[in-house]
Amino acid sequence: MRALTVSPENPHDLRIEDLKEPQPGPDQLLVNGLAVGVCATDREILAGQHGTAPPGASRLVLGHESLGRVRTAPEDSGFSVGDLVVGVVRRPDPEPCAACANGEFDMCRNGLYTERGIKELDGFAAESWIVEPSFCVRIDESLGHLGVLLEPTSVVAKAWEQVYAVGRRSWFEPASVLVTGAGPVGVLAALLGMQQGLDVHVLDQETVGPKPALVEGLGATYHYGDVQKVVSKVRPDVIIEATGAPTVLAATLEVTTPYRVTCLMGLPVGGGTAPTSLASAIRDTVLGNCVVVGSINANLRHYHAGAKALAAADPSWLNGIITRRVPLSDAQDAFRPRPHDIKVVIDLNEGR
Amino acid sequence: MRALTVSPENPHDLRIEDLKEPQPGPDQLLVNGLAVGVCATDREILAGQHGTAPPGASRLVLGHESLGRVRTAPEDSGFSVGDLVVGVVRRPDPEPCAACANGEFDMCRNGLYTERGIKELDGFAAESWIVEPSFCVRIDESLGHLGVLLEPTSVVAKAWEQVYAVGRRSWFEPASVLVTGAGPVGVLAALLGMQQGLDVHVLDQETVGPKPALVEGLGATYHYGDVQKVVSKVRPDVIIEATGAPTVLAATLEVTTPYRVTCLMGLPVGGGTAPTSLASAIRDTVLGNCVVVGSINANLRHYHAGAKALAAADPSWLNGIITRRVPLSDAQDAFRPRPHDIKVVIDLNEGR
Repeated sequence: MRALTVSPENPHDLRIEDLKEPQPGPDQLLVNGLAVGVCATDREILAGQHGTAPPGASRLVLGHESLGRVRTAPEDSGFSVGDLVVGVVRRPDPEPCAACANGEFDMCRNGLYTERGIKELDGFAAESWIVEPSFCVRIDESLGHLGVLLEPTSVVAKAWEQVYAVGRRSWFEPASVLVTGAGPVGVLAALLGMQQGLDVHVLDQETVGPKPALVEGLGATYHYGDVQKVVSKVRPDVIIEATGAPTVLAATLEVTTPYRVTCLMGLPVGGGTAPTSLASAIRDTVLGNCVVVGSINANLRHYHAGAKALAAADPSWLNGIITRRVPLSDAQDAFRPRPHDIKVVIDLNEGR
Repeated sequence: MRALTVSPENPHDLRIEDLKEPQPGPDQLLVNGLAVGVCATDREILAGQHGTAPPGASRLVLGHESLGRVRTAPEDSGFSVGDLVVGVVRRPDPEPCAACANGEFDMCRNGLYTERGIKELDGFAAESWIVEPSFCVRIDESLGHLGVLLEPTSVVAKAWEQVYAVGRRSWFEPASVLVTGAGPVGVLAALLGMQQGLDVHVLDQETVGPKPALVEGLGATYHYGDVQKVVSKVRPDVIIEATGAPTVLAATLEVTTPYRVTCLMGLPVGGGTAPTSLASAIRDTVLGNCVVVGSINANLRHYHAGAKALAAADPSWLNGIITRRVPLSDAQDAFRPRPHDIKVVIDLNEGR
């Protein structure tokens, strides 16, 4: 079977390799890979900035945003042949820290966790893959190819859970949210905000391309231009920061409101950093009892929450997030950014 | 009766005035003022950077860190003549926001709250003051004059509550805390850390004066010098930031650990700000699922928690926090900082 592999030690060495068909153990599912989504983490792995091959191997099968269909399932696994499924990315460390031992592997403390397609475990960018039923999520058949959006949606579901978990330390009924960045994570965060009945605002600097219409199609408000002006106008109770740009965070911290919860989801790219003065941000954070919480990854419950959110969304709107589909044989092309890309997906089942 | 007053509109106009004896309403306590503590907020009010006189008045009675003894108490007030008491600083706004309406006035959203000695309500730096029983806290008689430490301790108790409230969104059993700044708030935060059984570290830049011995007297570890080095060495699960210095926060954010909770309690003073790059702080906060939470003020329950913490502490250790006592007639002197000041207290009952 074909798989998309990288060599974490040799940057930019992306290959489509013919690998041995994986052999499921007695408790494992065998899955036909349908698609994988490509995200910034994949690009970092390809560039050699991130990622570790499995112990003893020199190459890593890429892909953590998965979609597949069960080919074989053990009895009593809870899964049936033909189920549409997504694999969970992270696994607790084998010598678990206290968080992992308590099932909270998305909050691992010692860094010894593993991740499919990222860290020491082969990923899902393969025509066949195996997975343990306890790290697999069945999704609504009606979602079809849109199920590839589940992994980023799980990360967004966790971020929203974190916002409420820290917000509910006192009275907390947020009315408005500002999402900074209209990439896949940003628009999915906006979707979940709308599903909660919030007044949703999304800020991005693109004025052409699909982003404005995608945000407006959700019933949310699209903003561009000066970040501080937008924050001053919206006065959001919650900010979901999905750009990773230090300038954007610094600008939002310049105009804070009491008890605001800011959730950081974006990772700064490269060394392009913006020096900023922290003094007024500290003052407003203290005087306003505000919180900044970082959030990444997801636990099993966040996949289930994400699957529910996707099943409740308008499929044609979700389809607008996937701006390009590339066959596995052209996978290299998925890593060449094009203007107005939102989510690029690699199809694994061409010709099958 | 004599009271210490300021004019928020005329900076540095501190006066000891003879005011009319306050007349308690049928539901109010009349209290003999014993002492007030002086903090940075008082200095800001005196400097005209903060503070509002009561509506219609040009001057504000200063003092929010109170200690007094009940002179008259209505029946069924829950208080008796002679009780040692402290007044609560903040009151919900008269047209309450939803947080105030839910009793969470320390988390007020619309900024219309009032505060004794700070915002629209006269303070406790007076030989007599009145207070509603529901905003008054009785303290252990054995504490005596140390009861003046209750207000800052209440703010510290709230900060610790906030640390656990956000920390417990997942598995959270902190082992170590680093307190930055060994002022009154810092050493009280260290006290409450010790009372929880944590490994407590305190960082300050003073190497002479009472701070090192005060911290070590608690059984905690005193550090000075390079902030990043100390953070790297201690690897604290919790940081209580009590300096307000942007350079200190920036340095701690440069060396983060997974799931760390940082509580900001200090307000930056003046315009002395340190430009810093946020990029690595954002990256570590996201990847580590870390939190930065601002905390200020206190609700009634935090006063009760603070009173319990003070009653459980060694009185001679607590006494070491109060490095100067100044009679009301020399109140001006309390506002002239001296090297190695920790907490300066104004005695209101001289010659009585």
